[in-house]
Amino acid sequence: MKRKSILILGILLFFIPLVNMFAEGTGEAPADIMWITWVGSLAALIFAGILAITILRKDQGTDKMKEISAYIKQGAMAYLKQQYVIVGIFLAVLFVVFLILSNFGLVHYLVPYAFLTGGFFSALSGFIGMSIATRSNARTAWAAKTSLNSGLRVAFSSGTVMGMVVVGLGLLDLSIWWLILNALKIHIDQIPPIMITFGMGASSVALFARVGGGIFTKAADVGADLVGKVEAGIPEDDPRNPAVIADNVGDNVGDVAGMGADLYESYVGSIIATMALGAVAFTAFGEQLVLKAVQIPVTIATVGVLCSILGTFLVRAKEQATQKVLLRSLRIGVYTATFLIAVLSFVLIYFLLGQDYMGIWGAMLVGLVAGNIIGFFTEYYTSDHYKPTQKLAEQSQTGPATIIIAGLSLGMVSTFIPVITVVIATIAAYFLAGQHLAGLYGIGIAAVGMLSTLGITLATDAYGPVADNAGGIAEMAGLGKEVRDRTDNLDALGNTTAATGKGFAIASAALTALALLAEYGNKILEFMKSGAAQLSKSFETMYSGIIDFSHWRAEGLPLDIGFMKIDLLNPLILIGVFIGAVLPFVFTSLSMSAVGRAAGSMVKEVRRQFAEKKGILEGTEKPDYASCVSISTKGAQKEMILPSVLAIIAPIIVGVVLGPFSVLAMLAGALASGFVLAIMMANSGGAWDNAKKYIEKGALGGKGSSNHKAAVVGDTVGDPFKDTSGPSLNILIKLMSMVSIVFVGLFVTLHNLIIGLF
Amino acid sequence: MKRKSILILGILLFFIPLVNMFAEGTGEAPADIMWITWVGSLAALIFAGILAITILRKDQGTDKMKEISAYIKQGAMAYLKQQYVIVGIFLAVLFVVFLILSNFGLVHYLVPYAFLTGGFFSALSGFIGMSIATRSNARTAWAAKTSLNSGLRVAFSSGTVMGMVVVGLGLLDLSIWWLILNALKIHIDQIPPIMITFGMGASSVALFARVGGGIFTKAADVGADLVGKVEAGIPEDDPRNPAVIADNVGDNVGDVAGMGADLYESYVGSIIATMALGAVAFTAFGEQLVLKAVQIPVTIATVGVLCSILGTFLVRAKEQATQKVLLRSLRIGVYTATFLIAVLSFVLIYFLLGQDYMGIWGAMLVGLVAGNIIGFFTEYYTSDHYKPTQKLAEQSQTGPATIIIAGLSLGMVSTFIPVITVVIATIAAYFLAGQHLAGLYGIGIAAVGMLSTLGITLATDAYGPVADNAGGIAEMAGLGKEVRDRTDNLDALGNTTAATGKGFAIASAALTALALLAEYGNKILEFMKSGAAQLSKSFETMYSGIIDFSHWRAEGLPLDIGFMKIDLLNPLILIGVFIGAVLPFVFTSLSMSAVGRAAGSMVKEVRRQFAEKKGILEGTEKPDYASCVSISTKGAQKEMILPSVLAIIAPIIVGVVLGPFSVLAMLAGALASGFVLAIMMANSGGAWDNAKKYIEKGALGGKGSSNHKAAVVGDTVGDPFKDTSGPSLNILIKLMSMVSIVFVGLFVTLHNLIIGLF
Repeated sequence: MKRKSILILGILLFFIPLVNMFAEGTGEAPADIMWITWVGSLAALIFAGILAITILRKDQGTDKMKEISAYIKQGAMAYLKQQYVIVGIFLAVLFVVFLILSNFGLVHYLVPYAFLTGGFFSALSGFIGMSIATRSNARTAWAAKTSLNSGLRVAFSSGTVMGMVVVGLGLLDLSIWWLILNALKIHIDQIPPIMITFGMGASSVALFARVGGGIFTKAADVGADLVGKVEAGIPEDDPRNPAVIADNVGDNVGDVAGMGADLYESYVGSIIATMALGAVAFTAFGEQLVLKAVQIPVTIATVGVLCSILGTFLVRAKEQATQKVLLRSLRIGVYTATFLIAVLSFVLIYFLLGQDYMGIWGAMLVGLVAGNIIGFFTEYYTSDHYKPTQKLAEQSQTGPATIIIAGLSLGMVSTFIPVITVVIATIAAYFLAGQHLAGLYGIGIAAVGMLSTLGITLATDAYGPVADNAGGIAEMAGLGKEVRDRTDNLDALGNTTAATGKGFAIASAALTALALLAEYGNKILEFMKSGAAQLSKSFETMYSGIIDFSHWRAEGLPLDIGFMKIDLLNPLILIGVFIGAVLPFVFTSLSMSAVGRAAGSMVKEVRRQFAEKKGILEGTEKPDYASCVSISTKGAQKEMILPSVLAIIAPIIVGVVLGPFSVLAMLAGALASGFVLAIMMANSGGAWDNAKKYIEKGALGGKGSSNHKAAVVGDTVGDPFKDTSGPSLNILIKLMSMVSIVFVGLFVTLHNLIIGLF
Repeated sequence: MKRKSILILGILLFFIPLVNMFAEGTGEAPADIMWITWVGSLAALIFAGILAITILRKDQGTDKMKEISAYIKQGAMAYLKQQYVIVGIFLAVLFVVFLILSNFGLVHYLVPYAFLTGGFFSALSGFIGMSIATRSNARTAWAAKTSLNSGLRVAFSSGTVMGMVVVGLGLLDLSIWWLILNALKIHIDQIPPIMITFGMGASSVALFARVGGGIFTKAADVGADLVGKVEAGIPEDDPRNPAVIADNVGDNVGDVAGMGADLYESYVGSIIATMALGAVAFTAFGEQLVLKAVQIPVTIATVGVLCSILGTFLVRAKEQATQKVLLRSLRIGVYTATFLIAVLSFVLIYFLLGQDYMGIWGAMLVGLVAGNIIGFFTEYYTSDHYKPTQKLAEQSQTGPATIIIAGLSLGMVSTFIPVITVVIATIAAYFLAGQHLAGLYGIGIAAVGMLSTLGITLATDAYGPVADNAGGIAEMAGLGKEVRDRTDNLDALGNTTAATGKGFAIASAALTALALLAEYGNKILEFMKSGAAQLSKSFETMYSGIIDFSHWRAEGLPLDIGFMKIDLLNPLILIGVFIGAVLPFVFTSLSMSAVGRAAGSMVKEVRRQFAEKKGILEGTEKPDYASCVSISTKGAQKEMILPSVLAIIAPIIVGVVLGPFSVLAMLAGALASGFVLAIMMANSGGAWDNAKKYIEKGALGGKGSSNHKAAVVGDTVGDPFKDTSGPSLNILIKLMSMVSIVFVGLFVTLHNLIIGLF
């Protein structure tokens, strides 16, 4: 009965905005355009709340299970507390910087507050997602005792809570800010930069969460595996392994809290970037159209929330369903939501903008299709149901070196189709939406379309770590092989659906970054137009090939984007591309070596415990779990700072020294190389993981064979690839763009001063 | 006495051009500007000939040594024959394509012939280098019986022959072509595209040689190590290993023939690209200055040859010198040559161009300094005398996975300084040489400066494989531990000097590619100006944001580079950067997986021989060396085609479908990501190799320890990194630029047709 009432609620919520839209119809938009985001955000948050209550009512199982789960929860919370202290300091420092800048008129006076709230909401998304995940792990394990499907229901509900919280909070804060901005009567021209700063706050917290969480989880994982599995020969998740709790904590702080903050940032980032472009793209057509263009992304997002809620109800199966049936059921949920949003957004755009603007719907559709294509190929390259990963597993026969070479090679070649898909999607969205600035707006819309069903795609992604944790608890609490097999099955299922989620995340990051790049281009011009910088003669001479100052001044035209050509044949631009291309590599190196160092400390600690307390391996003595958690925490906290700061200072240094135009080229270079590297790392890592699992399922000699050992080496190398560096790159490329947009006034002013010296 | 007479000859040769230049002095250039290249080429070739004769007079040692050396020579020649058949077919096909294109007026009528000769000379460089290397290996081993220094002398002479042949042939064919072009009275405007096609021929053969040779050598190396060293537990270069001859053949076909063709291409490519830019950069200042600008690169190259010859005489040491003394002696040779070229080119440019153009000398100096900085940091990151590689070796303590992660991380972070150095060098050369087209010419001059001392830097690089081979022969012929230790020392010395050489090769490739990119930009305009394409209205509309057609037509100005702005904010340009960024990854994947597959066949063959002939391991039965050589040969031949063809068809497809401007962006993207990836792969590979050697020297448990085993895995992964994919990327980025330049007429014509359809 309860489920039915929820269903009815969902359907009701679903129709409210549509009915309203039809009622207002015929192309005229309401004055307060953002009321619809309240619908989306409240629907998502209420639904998340109901699900959370349902989960908390489930049984946690035996006392032993409760105890283990409590350990994990404590460790995770202790970590998050530490992390938020550092993040808090970081936010405070930048808050002060923004206060100073706003004093000099280089940023809007609301920017410092927008930055803070963005950071706060991103952190909150991660926190809530993790809170529910740490409360669902034991419950999932206990439910899996009944059946695979029961386990799935709990884990999937937990994932759904996270998905809904992310989109709900995303829309909520947009709504709140819009209310404030309206109340303060801020003109629509000024809203985008404030919104982007909001995004910058969210992105910087997300980057910390991803990098820090990624380091924690992989240090614990690598440390636990290397000493436990390889050296001591005890199974995974064995309670005798001192790092086992840290490993399970890691799943929560990295794969849940990190992912939550990350996808909050992606979601809000894509909406904000598109709104910002909408605000400039249609100025020539009057304020009405501008308001509508700003409204479209949030409206699509809201409808997407409702479609996602509906989709989650389709994820159900008979009690004794097989893995295949469950996978189909998950897919039906996602595809139905996708189909619905495609159809409904047609109606929506038709009534909001009229038939002349249906190209914008085309752009959205392009985003949805591209996301699915990339998602499919992510799965193709990383799932053991397809040739590439099977062939990769075969390379284990000639040892660890060949499986590493083959995995890197697989990752590299797997970048081709996603890049070409994004390339085609970019052109298609650009031309469909009407070229020039409207075309760039179309690229943003494609990203919004891709992420519109995040509520459900994230649910299918986020339940994986819960299942993984459940498996650990089942193992440690001795629930028996059958339960463990079921949680392993859930975990494997999660890997498959997570691949699609990753494809969406990477592709949407690329499109969002493209939109942000365009927005940055606008911002350079806007700042120059404002006259705040008082450009020197030498500045104008230096950049006369890029900005057509003479025509602009002679003809007395407004300085628009047609006067600026970021000419690739200008060495100052070309070297920007070079600098940009190298940054993702440096960033990746920093985060990977951080994992290496933190894992090294963990290995030493586990070895120390085994050596000093002989009873641990015999099962007579209890290992010191807390010291392992604290080592991972300390390692992650120390190591996450440098890579995160790099993302913020690199654009500022380049902007001040080489000027605002080189920064644009740098962003393009970083986007291109970062995008490729992110796909490569995600896919190499995923394929190694699944090649190992493929062998563990019995292929090529199975567990314990020398082939398995080689595959474990591949999996270990892949860990930081897919869970630390790879996903962080998505944030990096967007954060650098946002930093550039926010600091453009600073670049131009200081660079102008420097140039003036010569 | 003999050495003294060579010295006198060298010094004499050295002064001829200078005396002439002073005599002609005061800024007036001679009409036949290219006579000086004959001096350079003949000096280099004569010197190479004399050294070759000296080497061939040395004793080859015992009959056993002669036999082994003969095996290696046969295998290498058999491989080269096979390779040249395929290369021949490839050259023939493109020859016909060019004939057809020239019939349609899309390329000059001499282009097909220029292409063929470029390919021929590149192949010849590899062939001669390999011929002398396969004749020097046993002689080096035998000389090493006397002393380390004697061994070095033979090996270094062999390397010098190769260095001199590469630069001598490079200048020779430039001289011959110039003679022909003058005789046919081809106008100077038409010479650059013909020359570039010459470069394209050289580059494509070089790419085949690098990829094919790289696959051969690493398949053999990996195969020999995995089964021999790891599985059967026999030492390296043990004659019982069936793959041992193939391994030694590999050193010659990959590291010698491949490198020869590669550096021939780099050398000629940098000179040609700079000449081409010189021909357009100074047109406004009259034909005299144009001729001089064209002359400068070859003149610097010629003086560089003479400085290099002089430098080689300084490489000598007492008979019982230590490794440290030998290294210092090698360095003195290189640094003296560098210092001399820096001083002499000052004089040269002063007298040729006058004091107003000394910025061009500055640009050359920038190239020399940048090359040395990058060379130093290559050594810093890959030599076991420095922290990074020592720390990498320590990662072996936690197993193969952590040393792989750390090595990848090391390679990634090591890209930063080289990229920033190239960035600074690019800006400095650009502004020193006078900005705009003259500035781009300056970037080319920096590359020419960097490679001006190739005669000696290549010698210090190319003797390494000879020493490596000598070590193998010493081992197989049982010359004893002392001799083997000496050849190992020579090999290690070679690794150190080779690092510097690699730094120069990568950095010069980046600068040359930048110059070629600029040249491609010119070519687009030139072709449009020629009116051959009859641009459609839709073409002009589509690209009105990039080419200022209206101003050009309205004002009746010549279409110059100021009318073209390859605007990064145009999505058609931005996606070009994306496509470009992904190509090096795809290329690398193809070449790495080719190594994996070929190595797999080798592993199976060696295992088969061990299994079928039990006597092999006991030393009573002789393994079938030839079958291993033939497996590597077949693997390399089959696998080298796809990656090489990719370099040629990618620009053509992008050019026809997305147009000539997107190609420019694609080249920039490929250059940026390829440059970074090339450095990463070279340095990761080098560091793993030396970390392994560091452990073998006794650190961290030494040979046979579990740390050593982990380091061997790293080294094996690094093999295709540093010897197949990495160096091939340098060629790839230049070849794609050359292909674009040569085929620009085709792009514009076909793309114009396609656009016209809409």
